[in-house]
Amino acid sequence: MPAMPAMPTMPARSWWGWGTDAAQLGPEETAALVGRVAALLPGHDLTDHPPPDPLTLGVPKPRVTPPPALADLCSADPVDRLGHARGKAFRDVVRNLHGDIAHVPDLVLRPRTEQDVVDVLDWCTATGTPVVPYGGGSSVVGGVEPRFDTPAVTLDLERLDQVIDVDPVSRAARIQAGVYGPALEARLRPHGLTLRHFPQSFEFSTLGGWLATRAGGHFATLATHIDDLTESLRVVSPAGVGESRRLPGSGAGPSADRMFLGSEGSLGVITEAWMRLQDRPVWQQTGTVGFDTYDDAVAATRAIAQAGLHPSNCRLLDPAEALMNAATTTSGGLLLIGFESADHPVDAWLDRALELVRDHRGTVLARRDRSKGTPEERAGDAAQAWRSAFLRMPYQRDALARRSLIVETFETACTWDAFPAFHAEVTAAAQRAIAEVCAGQGLVTCRFTHVYADGPAPYYGIFAAGRWGSTVAQWDEIKAAVSAAISASGGTITHHHAVGRDHRPWYDEQRPEPFHQALRAAKSALDPAGILNPGVIV
Amino acid sequence: MPAMPAMPTMPARSWWGWGTDAAQLGPEETAALVGRVAALLPGHDLTDHPPPDPLTLGVPKPRVTPPPALADLCSADPVDRLGHARGKAFRDVVRNLHGDIAHVPDLVLRPRTEQDVVDVLDWCTATGTPVVPYGGGSSVVGGVEPRFDTPAVTLDLERLDQVIDVDPVSRAARIQAGVYGPALEARLRPHGLTLRHFPQSFEFSTLGGWLATRAGGHFATLATHIDDLTESLRVVSPAGVGESRRLPGSGAGPSADRMFLGSEGSLGVITEAWMRLQDRPVWQQTGTVGFDTYDDAVAATRAIAQAGLHPSNCRLLDPAEALMNAATTTSGGLLLIGFESADHPVDAWLDRALELVRDHRGTVLARRDRSKGTPEERAGDAAQAWRSAFLRMPYQRDALARRSLIVETFETACTWDAFPAFHAEVTAAAQRAIAEVCAGQGLVTCRFTHVYADGPAPYYGIFAAGRWGSTVAQWDEIKAAVSAAISASGGTITHHHAVGRDHRPWYDEQRPEPFHQALRAAKSALDPAGILNPGVIV
Repeated sequence: MPAMPAMPTMPARSWWGWGTDAAQLGPEETAALVGRVAALLPGHDLTDHPPPDPLTLGVPKPRVTPPPALADLCSADPVDRLGHARGKAFRDVVRNLHGDIAHVPDLVLRPRTEQDVVDVLDWCTATGTPVVPYGGGSSVVGGVEPRFDTPAVTLDLERLDQVIDVDPVSRAARIQAGVYGPALEARLRPHGLTLRHFPQSFEFSTLGGWLATRAGGHFATLATHIDDLTESLRVVSPAGVGESRRLPGSGAGPSADRMFLGSEGSLGVITEAWMRLQDRPVWQQTGTVGFDTYDDAVAATRAIAQAGLHPSNCRLLDPAEALMNAATTTSGGLLLIGFESADHPVDAWLDRALELVRDHRGTVLARRDRSKGTPEERAGDAAQAWRSAFLRMPYQRDALARRSLIVETFETACTWDAFPAFHAEVTAAAQRAIAEVCAGQGLVTCRFTHVYADGPAPYYGIFAAGRWGSTVAQWDEIKAAVSAAISASGGTITHHHAVGRDHRPWYDEQRPEPFHQALRAAKSALDPAGILNPGVIV
Repeated sequence: MPAMPAMPTMPARSWWGWGTDAAQLGPEETAALVGRVAALLPGHDLTDHPPPDPLTLGVPKPRVTPPPALADLCSADPVDRLGHARGKAFRDVVRNLHGDIAHVPDLVLRPRTEQDVVDVLDWCTATGTPVVPYGGGSSVVGGVEPRFDTPAVTLDLERLDQVIDVDPVSRAARIQAGVYGPALEARLRPHGLTLRHFPQSFEFSTLGGWLATRAGGHFATLATHIDDLTESLRVVSPAGVGESRRLPGSGAGPSADRMFLGSEGSLGVITEAWMRLQDRPVWQQTGTVGFDTYDDAVAATRAIAQAGLHPSNCRLLDPAEALMNAATTTSGGLLLIGFESADHPVDAWLDRALELVRDHRGTVLARRDRSKGTPEERAGDAAQAWRSAFLRMPYQRDALARRSLIVETFETACTWDAFPAFHAEVTAAAQRAIAEVCAGQGLVTCRFTHVYADGPAPYYGIFAAGRWGSTVAQWDEIKAAVSAAISASGGTITHHHAVGRDHRPWYDEQRPEPFHQALRAAKSALDPAGILNPGVIV
């Protein structure tokens, strides 16, 4: 192994909102955003409600005392605990803005070793203390919120942040669960390798969090979920420590790893994993395509998804999404297509994809060879505009949340045959809810984040005028309405945001009952005291 | 749906060996085979030991009586029961040739409906009768053998053989578990669709069997296992019936389907599934490449596996395998590469793959556009020679088993970094065992059946001179030696042959202990009486 490069250090995190304090919107970006909203929702009260001083909120003292051996893993600092009290959903941010301090963990524990994790679980088991495993805390589904009346602790894995081993031959690395996205990529870069798993939360989420929640990456096809990048897992549960073999594939019994992937900290704490890596891409080409009708746009996207071309990007924006986030006017939709390779030019691949869109009456608006040109030249197209907006979205969301806007997303997946009726039902449910709870002041957008041969993963945005003091309740009503529509129309309650506590009612409805019984039994065997993130999954 | 085409009917199956009676080797093929063996193993006693008349074997009468409501599902016919007593491994065939009638099921039950399956499981639960779910019976790992001293029954799903629904938009079909490969493809063909899952057992195995055992298909990359072709499952367990949603992807909790895929009938009986289909391929190109050294051959194969080209075939035969099964002499190995598509010509893909092999000192021996030409013209290359041999292999195996040869395979997967040492250890273990138990008369071959970016799936063949009456014991000694070497060197005990009863000792060693506890608990919850295929998995 070459010498380890310096790790990027994490600047101070916002206790109440997305990301870091330093990256919050400045005055100019705020003014531009507010101006756009004022034009879109005339009459909306845009008064800014800045976050309270966390030291004035009266966070109660911890109600538990750790054994001396664990004392120096523990933080009782009120702002630290506040920062771990919830994830980064809209409803989390707004509750923070209101100074709501319900369900703050009594302690934040930061293990330095796997043995520390074992010791913490032993202590929690012995005392019956619920423990919430915590990666980057970017959950948008209540996954890290200790929603208990009894004392509870949070297990923050950020000190388990090493890349322990790199295997350049098989292109894999043994990685501790607590490493954040940028630090992980920085460690892999000197080897010419990359995990290429880029969720929107990338900067503020960890490998362990991705694994525990079956995170979705940036790429539209093939390894869309972290599951497929996983070679083996190491898991600490109260019943013992287990590690699966490093294998490229196996057919020996039900997959052990797949039981822990998506278990959201309820069956064990993932401490490390061997992950499949890739060479860093050299060839990159993108195409931007406009359509006159959404039906044509969907049909073209399906044709590409079923052609066996495996684009890295295949993101269909509906007209509202294109306008809001790519500043492009289109009557039918905007399709962003990309191909990437570390091995070969991808002209033949993009050529064929563009033939397919033309067969479906698409108009190619731009084609770029992104392996060439200056960063400025590359920045000129709609794909790039969309991507820049993508990374700023959560910060803008926070600025709008402070101004009584309801800005949130929900996502799902369904089969292609079901999509037209599904999309109509879900969109109608969202619009009805906006009409009822926001007096019709708002809009619904849709994009496909991932596409499969048998169906898309639609990702919806809600942008509506709320009333300060009521925006969480308003959002909860909208969310219940769209979740019911998703469930009734055959979609999954989550394609890649996980279940957490917020999706439980619909997850319980969708999960086959015998599997529920099996999971419950597995949970009892692995976590007999029921201390591991109670309330999620089972 | 168009009118259903006529289903291919299954000719009379061999009760003792592979396939059908009609397809057994004729005199000419037998003479040629025996001649080749005589040249390879001079001095070996090639006396033919034909199968006994099954009616003379004294199969005992059933020890259980079904309730009247189930009576007309039941067969007590001795030859039918004998034919269901074991799978189709070498050791199964030889035991049949010896007239060994241990562990014949007391009854074979053939449900016509899912309710029949429920009723059979209820009866078995009430009476504590072990029940072995049975697809095509092609297990080579003791998966369908009722290895119990108490009464036991076999649940043959062959009457649940319908394609219930086809969704041409999402390219998926709802299919009953008992349908055999050829009948399934015949039903899909009028829709222009195919499952494209072609294990070697294709003619004599069923969808349900593939799902329950995580079968591996013919294709080298992407959806190598049936798992990835599965959209949803319907499962009957003693604790209830469950069905997962049809979804192209989901991140809602641990995958429910992945708990039943590979459960080998121990957690429930899969009665139907929605399966992902593909358009039938139009473009097919193949290349055949020779190498001077095996190291170069392996490195070239790895380069292709890591290039993101996703070949449909990427089968590396070592020199012994190339000689035995493709009649080709090579000092380093023979690589068969293929690309297929229903959407576009694959020239660019094969061009790049052949560039990669040339970079690794490979010599392109042939390149064929298999979309063109007559069947005779297509039949001329090594790839086709290998493929024809592939389909005849099990029949030849039986002819050789009758003549005291030990002819068997074992398969695994490991990472690329581990492969050189792994392969040396496993090959040496096999050769040592052949030296000890067969006085050195035999050989070991290897091919890669599947390749992943992080490692190959090597498939080994053993061909050795046995002694009539001892060949099962001889094979068992060789198998124990190679399994120990696989396990010690980091491979999986099975990449796609399943665990069954024969792989249990090594599976138990490899399975992470917490997962074992979770599975055991799940089994108790779903099958409280422990009647479902006891002895496999848990």
